Amino acid sequence: MDKQKLKPISGFPEWLPEFRLIEQRWIDTIRQVFESYGYASIETRAVEPVDVLLKQGDTDKEIYAIGRLFEDRPDAKPEYALHYDMTVPLARFVAAHLNDLVFPVKRYQIQKAWRGERPQEGRFREFYQCDIDVIDRREIPLHFDAEMPAIMTEVLDRLQVGAVVTKVNNRKILEGFYRGLGIEQANEVIRIVDKLDKIGASGVARLLTDELAVPADRIAKILALAEIKGRDDSVIGRAKALGVSSPLLDQGLDELAFVLRELGTQVGRGYVADLSVARGLAYYTGTVYEAKFVDWPDYPTICGGGRYDNLVGSLINQRLPGIGISIGLTRIFAKLVKEGRLKPGRKAPTDVLVALVPGNDYATAKATARTLRERGIRTEQYHEERKLDQQLRYAAAKGIRYVWFPPATAGAPHEVKDLDSGKQGPADPRDWRPSL
Amino acid sequence: MDKQKLKPISGFPEWLPEFRLIEQRWIDTIRQVFESYGYASIETRAVEPVDVLLKQGDTDKEIYAIGRLFEDRPDAKPEYALHYDMTVPLARFVAAHLNDLVFPVKRYQIQKAWRGERPQEGRFREFYQCDIDVIDRREIPLHFDAEMPAIMTEVLDRLQVGAVVTKVNNRKILEGFYRGLGIEQANEVIRIVDKLDKIGASGVARLLTDELAVPADRIAKILALAEIKGRDDSVIGRAKALGVSSPLLDQGLDELAFVLRELGTQVGRGYVADLSVARGLAYYTGTVYEAKFVDWPDYPTICGGGRYDNLVGSLINQRLPGIGISIGLTRIFAKLVKEGRLKPGRKAPTDVLVALVPGNDYATAKATARTLRERGIRTEQYHEERKLDQQLRYAAAKGIRYVWFPPATAGAPHEVKDLDSGKQGPADPRDWRPSL
Repeated sequence: MDKQKLKPISGFPEWLPEFRLIEQRWIDTIRQVFESYGYASIETRAVEPVDVLLKQGDTDKEIYAIGRLFEDRPDAKPEYALHYDMTVPLARFVAAHLNDLVFPVKRYQIQKAWRGERPQEGRFREFYQCDIDVIDRREIPLHFDAEMPAIMTEVLDRLQVGAVVTKVNNRKILEGFYRGLGIEQANEVIRIVDKLDKIGASGVARLLTDELAVPADRIAKILALAEIKGRDDSVIGRAKALGVSSPLLDQGLDELAFVLRELGTQVGRGYVADLSVARGLAYYTGTVYEAKFVDWPDYPTICGGGRYDNLVGSLINQRLPGIGISIGLTRIFAKLVKEGRLKPGRKAPTDVLVALVPGNDYATAKATARTLRERGIRTEQYHEERKLDQQLRYAAAKGIRYVWFPPATAGAPHEVKDLDSGKQGPADPRDWRPSL
Repeated sequence: MDKQKLKPISGFPEWLPEFRLIEQRWIDTIRQVFESYGYASIETRAVEPVDVLLKQGDTDKEIYAIGRLFEDRPDAKPEYALHYDMTVPLARFVAAHLNDLVFPVKRYQIQKAWRGERPQEGRFREFYQCDIDVIDRREIPLHFDAEMPAIMTEVLDRLQVGAVVTKVNNRKILEGFYRGLGIEQANEVIRIVDKLDKIGASGVARLLTDELAVPADRIAKILALAEIKGRDDSVIGRAKALGVSSPLLDQGLDELAFVLRELGTQVGRGYVADLSVARGLAYYTGTVYEAKFVDWPDYPTICGGGRYDNLVGSLINQRLPGIGISIGLTRIFAKLVKEGRLKPGRKAPTDVLVALVPGNDYATAKATARTLRERGIRTEQYHEERKLDQQLRYAAAKGIRYVWFPPATAGAPHEVKDLDSGKQGPADPRDWRPSL
């Protein structure tokens, strides 16, 4: 075997048990918060028809197609590919199961997704995403637009990921503003404004001139709108003060004002309205979200989402509005590991190691382990009659706090050693408890 | 969108929320049992180098390779493929992280795997497997050979999957017996005997004659060995009575006798030594397991595993013995769903729906929901001011038992309605509890 084959594959992170334990706890916490708001779990298959995936915008280069290794028809166009997010699969799932679901559908999905991206910091090829979404057959109340970032903020607080800022905007503001300026290709402008972070105001101005021939005075307005940030109604006033108007813009500003008021009552100071936020994907139609680490502003977006009132329905020619938000678990986790902000957990879940004392009866050790286990204590047996020293070293190396010594003769007391304190004393497997 | 694209993909199962809830509970239970024996979680990436996967036997046709959809070099041989099990990835993981792991490594893995098989009952293309394995740098004590099926039996009991029989054998018995008969190509014989279930004794005899030119008297012995089944030491006696001997055979019989004795003390009557069990995969070297539904004996194996003392080491030219067992979660779950033996769960995890009473204050409803949620009660708000009747119907459709009515005026009592009993009465969100 070529040792090269054992090396990590760039963009496909794996964790040793002591970090996997923390990742698991994170997933448990996320699930608990999602369920506490009434969202139900689903999982969708890893693959979707290529056509379904390609329908949604600018992702064609990033898709991993699958095919049988020794395909009978090697030239055939790939039919299926790994999903790159959970929103498109959800849309397909809901469209396929319309009559089996109760609306509004409120679901969460914690699964891996895959993108054939060039690996760089914060960009993975295989990664966990944790999504909540609502899909309905009726209009979805605006209250959900506030609930989404509130839930996400609660998750990130409980995971203690450090300071995060959630930027909120509304696609109707952008589109309505651009239309109010007399620009027809609003989506093209959005696509370019979305690059503001990367290429700056001058870069955006150049693209708007070169690609869309937007006149300079309108470019100035577009950039002025993108500069507006704030946490209260003043944002609305400043947008209106730019002197552009359209019914869609007014509606977007009303919606944003509502979301800001609701967030103000519940999520502390970790959000901001930021009228530069566009979100790349074509399917958003209203409120959009984008969260960043405060300490690493250049690190990619760690949570994102928004309202997509036409995505699901477009699959079946019905109206099925949707809204959702996605937590980039792997992206967040990997960054905190890299920065040393996550303390590794233990290397084993074991509470107690039942030693196999040389010369002792194996059956006694086994019965002891079973008794402890039946009482909910995670117990492993050392299955090899080795020197006690070796067994203690094993326990210490795995972070197992207690080592149990069954008696050599029937009726003699059991003993347990606490490796933290070094103390050892008699104990009864029927009522002993580890300290927490 | 072509409606065809919304249809299920054969072999890629998906569950509605009410069954996904049960699948989640199963996974929680499996995880809990695995951890109660001290096994630590890891997850490996979904893909492995094609070479690593191909090294292990007869699986080449079943592998899904991945490649970027618009590959720059479309003729390039695929480099990576989706894993088809968790054992080969574990071997690669351990070989790659030798110095970061504490031995014996005891890990569990609950992940999806993929095989490009022709779909038929019980054979999936995407499926969950739940594996426990031990890998060590020293010889692994035989006690683990008994612990593996004991853990698996405990899991299946707790999941209440119905009657299961676990067949146990030892590769050393087969190989030693065939060598004792003077047959050199023991692995070839094993591969053919493994088809016994499918093609019967006459089919096996024919293949042994045609492909390996085994003389008829030896074929008779081979088939006689394969007929031996039983739960105690008589199995050993009957194997010896066939008059074949070799040191490897003796060792295999000793090991099987040990495992049978240990199982006899702990797993009830759900196991049997069955000297016809071979397991297809080339890497097994000792004890092997194979579990079947008692009620559906033709359904594929639902759990399997065994000892593989050379697999991990072969990657790095060291000796690293291993043993493990794998629960075919999707295979078991899908069968019980199909047979109507699993009662669907609720369509939502929600305990309480806080109604939005027409004319009432939204902020009061929101504060009520928050109070309940902070007390660990899973609470969703109905966000739309619709007729109460509609809200009650929504709760009933999702299986939400309680509907909460915040007061219309400050100071008036809250009320809660139990949809199971139909009773409604006053309640305080600060101390009310749902009944279980």
